[in-house]
Amino acid sequence: MLIARVVGTAVSTIKDEKLSGLKLLIVREATHTNELVGKPFVAADSVGAGVGELVLIAQGSSARQTDKTKDRPVDAVIMGILDELEVDGELTFRKS
Amino acid sequence: MLIARVVGTAVSTIKDEKLSGLKLLIVREATHTNELVGKPFVAADSVGAGVGELVLIAQGSSARQTDKTKDRPVDAVIMGILDELEVDGELTFRKS
Amino acid sequence: MLIARVVGTAVSTIKDEKLSGLKLLIVREATHTNELVGKPFVAADSVGAGVGELVLIAQGSSARQTDKTKDRPVDAVIMGILDELEVDGELTFRKS
Amino acid sequence: MLIARVVGTAVSTIKDEKLSGLKLLIVREATHTNELVGKPFVAADSVGAGVGELVLIAQGSSARQTDKTKDRPVDAVIMGILDELEVDGELTFRKS
Amino acid sequence: MLIARVVGTAVSTIKDEKLSGLKLLIVREATHTNELVGKPFVAADSVGAGVGELVLIAQGSSARQTDKTKDRPVDAVIMGILDELEVDGELTFRKS
Repeated sequence: MLIARVVGTAVSTIKDEKLSGLKLLIVREATHTNELVGKPFVAADSVGAGVGELVLIAQGSSARQTDKTKDRPVDAVIMGILDELEVDGELTFRKS
Repeated sequence: MLIARVVGTAVSTIKDEKLSGLKLLIVREATHTNELVGKPFVAADSVGAGVGELVLIAQGSSARQTDKTKDRPVDAVIMGILDELEVDGELTFRKS
Repeated sequence: MLIARVVGTAVSTIKDEKLSGLKLLIVREATHTNELVGKPFVAADSVGAGVGELVLIAQGSSARQTDKTKDRPVDAVIMGILDELEVDGELTFRKS
Repeated sequence: MLIARVVGTAVSTIKDEKLSGLKLLIVREATHTNELVGKPFVAADSVGAGVGELVLIAQGSSARQTDKTKDRPVDAVIMGILDELEVDGELTFRKS
Repeated sequence: MLIARVVGTAVSTIKDEKLSGLKLLIVREATHTNELVGKPFVAADSVGAGVGELVLIAQGSSARQTDKTKDRPVDAVIMGILDELEVDGELTFRKS
């Protein structure tokens, strides 16, 4: 799963009916020290994540395995909010 | 999901029968400020998108979750037209 | 779906039995102006495409949605031969 | 499957209920000589892997084929701990 | 499907039970002239391929469509041994 930071929100009025009710967030891949490294893309939110939070993202068919995204045309879902990351024995990220 | 801009259309006469009736659009990945960054590729349209619009694209098996693309050999579908994108508290795109 | 040009053919005698009867073509990703940009890879053919033609390719599980590729271990299928591509209001490719 | 080294751990309290009980490890792609080459990402653990070990990772829908990850929103799973890698007739990695 | 060369073997003792009995080979993507271009990764073997051979690899869920890999957590399978590749009318590879 990707480590990513929520950086914004997307609004779409004309959309496939299976998308209705889904919250769409703009995210960017981040490192274990919370530095942004990737281009912005959009993920569906299944956990109530907010802008600024570091999250976990599942992609592909795995993005449709949450109750909120089942059978919907989404290929990226936020399914966890990260509290701590530890790499090589050091705490590299702690949610503030 | 990718943020992308519709840049053109594709016509294919000799094609798998499961593609018949699908509208095929040429798209390129774009940033949250509507700058083109990716190479052109083709996506099926499920929402009536037009050239110049900023859209959301689902890829892989998720591209087959709309009524228009179910069980068809397509790996990219436009399933939303973007109205607004907001990043870091600023409106970076608004549909004109 | 990828825009690609058929550049050659692949022959494999020792192969999984589920591949028997499939035509395997070598393709490279191309732009909307028919310039080659990608590395060669192999796609199954479902539409009778020939060397030199510009085609559409579906990848991943979507490559198994044609009658010719159903339940087979292929992750790329040619499912359309391109006649015309139009980008930004200009015809950038027409099949000759 | 990717060759990867386990470099750390991830903690997520607020997460999709289908993730509960899964151990989440931070991994980076590695070469056959155990050099790190990729960016950190997160994989579910199905085999009791520990930090420092070289492992095999299955991605996409294949990541949901273990008993521990079935039907869960995970797109990467550690499903083997590597003992030895041999390339061009030379042992390039042996677990110590 | 990827064109790849088998360059070695991988041994994993502690692994998901669904992997038992599978032969794991180290492969690298190659061109149509048999030059190595990609990083090493691991593929399950369904056709008895050996080190040095040029092979075809199916990835993703398509890697689970052979009898040997069905329902197993593998995302890459060797499902053909290449005999000949012809590009632009020239034979660029022939198995010796």
